[in-house]
Amino acid sequence: MKIGIIGAGQLGRMLALAGYPLGLQFVFLDPSADAPGAALGSMVKGDFANTTALHSLAARVDVVTFDVENVPVEALGEIAALKPFWPPVTALGVSQDRLLEKQLFRSMGIATAEFAAVDSLEDLRSAARRIGLPGVLKTRRLGYDGRGQFYLRSTKDLAVAWKALGAVPLIYEAFVEFSREVSIIGARGARGEMVFYPLSANVHSEGILRHSIAPFRNPPLQSQAEKHLRKILRHFDYRGVLAIEFFVRRGRLIANEMAPRVHNSGHWTIEGAVTSQFENHLRAIAGLPLGCTAPTGHCAMINFIGTMPPAAGLLRIPGVHYHSYGKTPRPNRKLGHCTVLAASPLKRDRVLERVLALPF
Amino acid sequence: MKIGIIGAGQLGRMLALAGYPLGLQFVFLDPSADAPGAALGSMVKGDFANTTALHSLAARVDVVTFDVENVPVEALGEIAALKPFWPPVTALGVSQDRLLEKQLFRSMGIATAEFAAVDSLEDLRSAARRIGLPGVLKTRRLGYDGRGQFYLRSTKDLAVAWKALGAVPLIYEAFVEFSREVSIIGARGARGEMVFYPLSANVHSEGILRHSIAPFRNPPLQSQAEKHLRKILRHFDYRGVLAIEFFVRRGRLIANEMAPRVHNSGHWTIEGAVTSQFENHLRAIAGLPLGCTAPTGHCAMINFIGTMPPAAGLLRIPGVHYHSYGKTPRPNRKLGHCTVLAASPLKRDRVLERVLALPF
Repeated sequence: MKIGIIGAGQLGRMLALAGYPLGLQFVFLDPSADAPGAALGSMVKGDFANTTALHSLAARVDVVTFDVENVPVEALGEIAALKPFWPPVTALGVSQDRLLEKQLFRSMGIATAEFAAVDSLEDLRSAARRIGLPGVLKTRRLGYDGRGQFYLRSTKDLAVAWKALGAVPLIYEAFVEFSREVSIIGARGARGEMVFYPLSANVHSEGILRHSIAPFRNPPLQSQAEKHLRKILRHFDYRGVLAIEFFVRRGRLIANEMAPRVHNSGHWTIEGAVTSQFENHLRAIAGLPLGCTAPTGHCAMINFIGTMPPAAGLLRIPGVHYHSYGKTPRPNRKLGHCTVLAASPLKRDRVLERVLALPF
Repeated sequence: MKIGIIGAGQLGRMLALAGYPLGLQFVFLDPSADAPGAALGSMVKGDFANTTALHSLAARVDVVTFDVENVPVEALGEIAALKPFWPPVTALGVSQDRLLEKQLFRSMGIATAEFAAVDSLEDLRSAARRIGLPGVLKTRRLGYDGRGQFYLRSTKDLAVAWKALGAVPLIYEAFVEFSREVSIIGARGARGEMVFYPLSANVHSEGILRHSIAPFRNPPLQSQAEKHLRKILRHFDYRGVLAIEFFVRRGRLIANEMAPRVHNSGHWTIEGAVTSQFENHLRAIAGLPLGCTAPTGHCAMINFIGTMPPAAGLLRIPGVHYHSYGKTPRPNRKLGHCTVLAASPLKRDRVLERVLALPF
């Protein structure tokens, strides 16, 4: 079976690495011929919005999926009619718009921060009055890894924030005082069967995920998160992997955003779960049975952003698994990650300390 | 770093799958454009004996290695002068000739079956007299997976066997009444450091490996095997992974053959060891520190030969890891394998039973 992947970034690369053992083949669509996944399959070179390129991809494969969220949904309409396309275009569309996403969460009884659509400075003023300050003004679309966000402390910031972001539709959200950020990743298969990974606890800085600890064991939160994810998966008659990021406030989950794809906070599953999120995504879209999501130990996943530590230094530490994405270093660019896998949280933390002591 | 691999079979494919996360890139030399590894790197199309193709491979990479043993050593002489070539050509040369191999074992004090070179029917008769019957007549070169072997029961078989195989240099070996077959796999790195995997217990049929159980725990045999492997690795000033297959007779190891490469009996290490044999081979030839070889559980590896079981049936069994090589089915062809990973030998055997009940 041939899988078409829109985007040949690190997620596409790790999908292909997980998929060859299943006997799958890969064709990528990407504007860059040296994208991280490019060496791992055939390439169709083109922009994600290029319908000719999208058609050419679809013509060459049995199923189409994507590793990026900024694929214009309008360009996909026809593709999804030509070839099986998973996860559903509807889920992708909602995930591209923070307003639709939050409205969906609310409609399913999933708590979110207070929010309001902002299309003018007046909207922003009234939202800040109603919801209060501090808050975060965000572009509704195309924001990721902290881009397109403005943190507002006081009414003095409103005009500045509007000036910075106001050219596009926005959303104002109450700032959530959280004790922790967690995410859940699950998959839904061809017959509606669902599997869920244990929660991971995530640390962000400047809007970018820095590291995750998994499994994060908290049975009440795990069961809340699975309940929420199950609802969303059913709502979209979903196939594939979906992630939801939450804030934890007073023992309760506040949904922040969802990603209709494999997720950075699930990279630990490559070594740390019986079946990785990448393999389960492929199993789901290929119509194969889903794999066991049980953890195999205690993990920490550390992102390498902007610079990579020396490989030899990392590989010398037992229990560390190294993942380079084959990218040219650039500030704020995710270049790779490593996963620490240990038999106990204590051992994991000891190894983690050695990793964090390396220069990167 | 770019790795050149002579041969794009399943071993090359699994090397590449292990190597991308290390940030390595791959170029394969293979006569077939749809070889199992072809999709996982660039290809130089050509025979293994084609010196132009070998030069073109060497010119494009930083280090050259191989996934097949039947690369004519004469064709490699110049390559090894052009680019780092690991494992050493000398080790490859010895492994290609059963006589040299057995002579090497003997010279290092490693027990083997009684053997004699056979270049005439008279040689064969005198070897059978001296060594006794039953015995096995084998081609010295290019025998693998049971090809080029003739089992001799009585003196009546001598002429028939000679007729079948006598066109090429042969070796006559005493038949070893063994209680078990085991193999050890180890790696030697750039600074002479060595790591060893636990023994695996192997079951062959018609000369082809059918399944392996690992770790096979037997401390006295493990220590004998490591001692033998250590000697061989040092002898060749080796870099990379080397495997030795042994018969076990009355608690003692009888060396059968060695393979200067990753080995079928080590496929369990992908899921069953902290660092796989594929990753350790690449670490060794790339000059990186070697990884931990500790087992992560109890494994059974089952080869799929000639036919593949239905993927869905296998993937439904928790703890089973599926590896298709993307090959067209053909009798006696290794098409894939699966690895059962479980927390105890008992659980492993239960899962193994379910796998063996599938139609293949």
